[in-house]
Amino acid sequence: MTQTTPIADRLPLLRRLGIRTPIIQAPMAGVSTPALAAAVTNAGGLGSLGVGAMDAEAARKAIRETRALTSGPFNVNVFCHAPAVADAAREQAWLAYLAPRFAEFGATPPAALREIYRSYVTDDAMHAMLLEERPAVVSFHFGLPDAGRIRALRDAGIVLLASATSLDEARAIEAAGIDAIVAQGIEAGGHRGVFDPSAVDEGLGTFALVRMLATQTRLPVIAAGGIMDGAGIAAALALGAHAAQLGTAFIACPETVADGPYREALLQARKRPTVLTRAISGRHARGLANRFTELGAAAGAPATPDYPTAYDAGKALHAAAKARGSADFAAQWAGQAVPLARALPAAELVAALASELAASARGLGELAETLG
Amino acid sequence: MTQTTPIADRLPLLRRLGIRTPIIQAPMAGVSTPALAAAVTNAGGLGSLGVGAMDAEAARKAIRETRALTSGPFNVNVFCHAPAVADAAREQAWLAYLAPRFAEFGATPPAALREIYRSYVTDDAMHAMLLEERPAVVSFHFGLPDAGRIRALRDAGIVLLASATSLDEARAIEAAGIDAIVAQGIEAGGHRGVFDPSAVDEGLGTFALVRMLATQTRLPVIAAGGIMDGAGIAAALALGAHAAQLGTAFIACPETVADGPYREALLQARKRPTVLTRAISGRHARGLANRFTELGAAAGAPATPDYPTAYDAGKALHAAAKARGSADFAAQWAGQAVPLARALPAAELVAALASELAASARGLGELAETLG
Repeated sequence: MTQTTPIADRLPLLRRLGIRTPIIQAPMAGVSTPALAAAVTNAGGLGSLGVGAMDAEAARKAIRETRALTSGPFNVNVFCHAPAVADAAREQAWLAYLAPRFAEFGATPPAALREIYRSYVTDDAMHAMLLEERPAVVSFHFGLPDAGRIRALRDAGIVLLASATSLDEARAIEAAGIDAIVAQGIEAGGHRGVFDPSAVDEGLGTFALVRMLATQTRLPVIAAGGIMDGAGIAAALALGAHAAQLGTAFIACPETVADGPYREALLQARKRPTVLTRAISGRHARGLANRFTELGAAAGAPATPDYPTAYDAGKALHAAAKARGSADFAAQWAGQAVPLARALPAAELVAALASELAASARGLGELAETLG
Repeated sequence: MTQTTPIADRLPLLRRLGIRTPIIQAPMAGVSTPALAAAVTNAGGLGSLGVGAMDAEAARKAIRETRALTSGPFNVNVFCHAPAVADAAREQAWLAYLAPRFAEFGATPPAALREIYRSYVTDDAMHAMLLEERPAVVSFHFGLPDAGRIRALRDAGIVLLASATSLDEARAIEAAGIDAIVAQGIEAGGHRGVFDPSAVDEGLGTFALVRMLATQTRLPVIAAGGIMDGAGIAAALALGAHAAQLGTAFIACPETVADGPYREALLQARKRPTVLTRAISGRHARGLANRFTELGAAAGAPATPDYPTAYDAGKALHAAAKARGSADFAAQWAGQAVPLARALPAAELVAALASELAASARGLGELAETLG
């Protein structure tokens, strides 16, 4: 084999992102840390910070902490959901529904719910901060900001990514001038990036979605959902992706802020299925089934408030339960392939993933010899 | 590259199945034909007959017709669902729900519903016929027959496959002495093979399911769901599968009995999403969204009768609509990647798939050189 084309010629997105191996650590707001992002970047992948639940100054701090730990590129992920519409009746009905669970832990629900964080689409301070700090990569979840924000970020030399769960969303991303699409399949843990949470969600699996976007859009595709090892990354590349984004695979790394019960639950995940629920945050997210997801699925459950207003209640209920030693109402986000999770330091995990990927790709190449 | 290990040493299931290329045409009861199965087998893959909706003599005829067209191995798929439990009240409520749709086409619903075909688990004539005809491969969907039937088929030298949608089902298949597992992801068109339709279905995507079964069972895995081209087959092999089973990819072949409106809908599928519905047959199956799937998803829809009793109503309603020129109530089963469907003769399609697979595998191999 005399093939010497460098990887970045085969997967040009890697050169654009400035990374050596086609591995992106998913942003995972509330789980990822500067230490995690920096470790992944230093190991040759693309680390990410999820700042969707932070204000501009907290996000700036996280970016600076990451820069102190790596000179390489990393990704800063912001949420682009339509801002919540307050609906006092719906919010009170939801709080009333949760009240017996608060009572179980000797707590009372909050009197009212707040929209606990701003969408980047209206957060001028966050936008200004990004233009000042200029992270190498910015990614969008739940939709896209307006053309002015996109242009400003591009003009600042920032590479832009956005999540799509369907071909229509991918086409919108393409039309908006984004650099690459994160194709998020139904397997993925955490929040589904659907643009319009009230629209019908076909729930496309990673396999179908990645192949459709790789063949029916012109942008490079990053595969996400159900990818836990190098074989999975090789499969994503076979489907035409330029890189794979892994979230659940990184949660049990010591560099995250996942708490003890979450780590334990992840590593014993064969005992609990994952489910998509709106009950915790107001938007569909996949996590390990627990009493909170059951509450959301129960017959007669009222409609949740808008995202992220419902999350105000969800976080309060979890805090009340946690104060009494219960993790039954935690948001333990996880993807469908969580039984394959490993607890390794991030640098070791990236090295293992890269080595498994090389072995899988080599195996396929050897198979090709016999396929003629 | 001096690699000369034959493909059947890398993918030993192929030798067991007696085929040259890791491509299995999904059985697709009501769509596949002896001509399709034979064409796929003659092209080096494994053709399949879906006889779940036939009685033993019709199935014998289909097997003999296939044998007249090929001397190679093919697969005969039987349904192993728990027999329907009659429930007159539920059936009448369902018929009452459908009655206005029948009326729309100048028809009346049947007075009562029948269990329109027998499960192989109670069909002694089908079992005796299989032992007489001895097809090379028999596959099970919706569960497993009892140990006696499995032993008899094995003793007759028949290779056995069974569908799994979860790790628990895969473990049951392994324990039963089956030769390989068809890992059917949520992307797949047609009926989900879940063993117990009343249990919670995690809805595992192909990517997650195949990788979990490949790593957590000892049996060879056949990937199914969302695979439409050779890149998809390469991805399945990267995930550790020994072969890929494609259904939707074959529906538009001229050798199937899909009707005109179904073919047209498939090839224009970008206009309609696929959905899982119980409304048509009584069990979850994925097809192109239409008025029938809407009816099933409507608020206040009554519970469907058991499978396949509900299908008696479904087929009658489709027949009434079709008689008036409407395909609005057809069972147009299709997987999520249906926008990638091609209308090619089966032999050409298998040749294209094999060639694309080789190219994808070679591409991965070349990539491996640069991954170090």
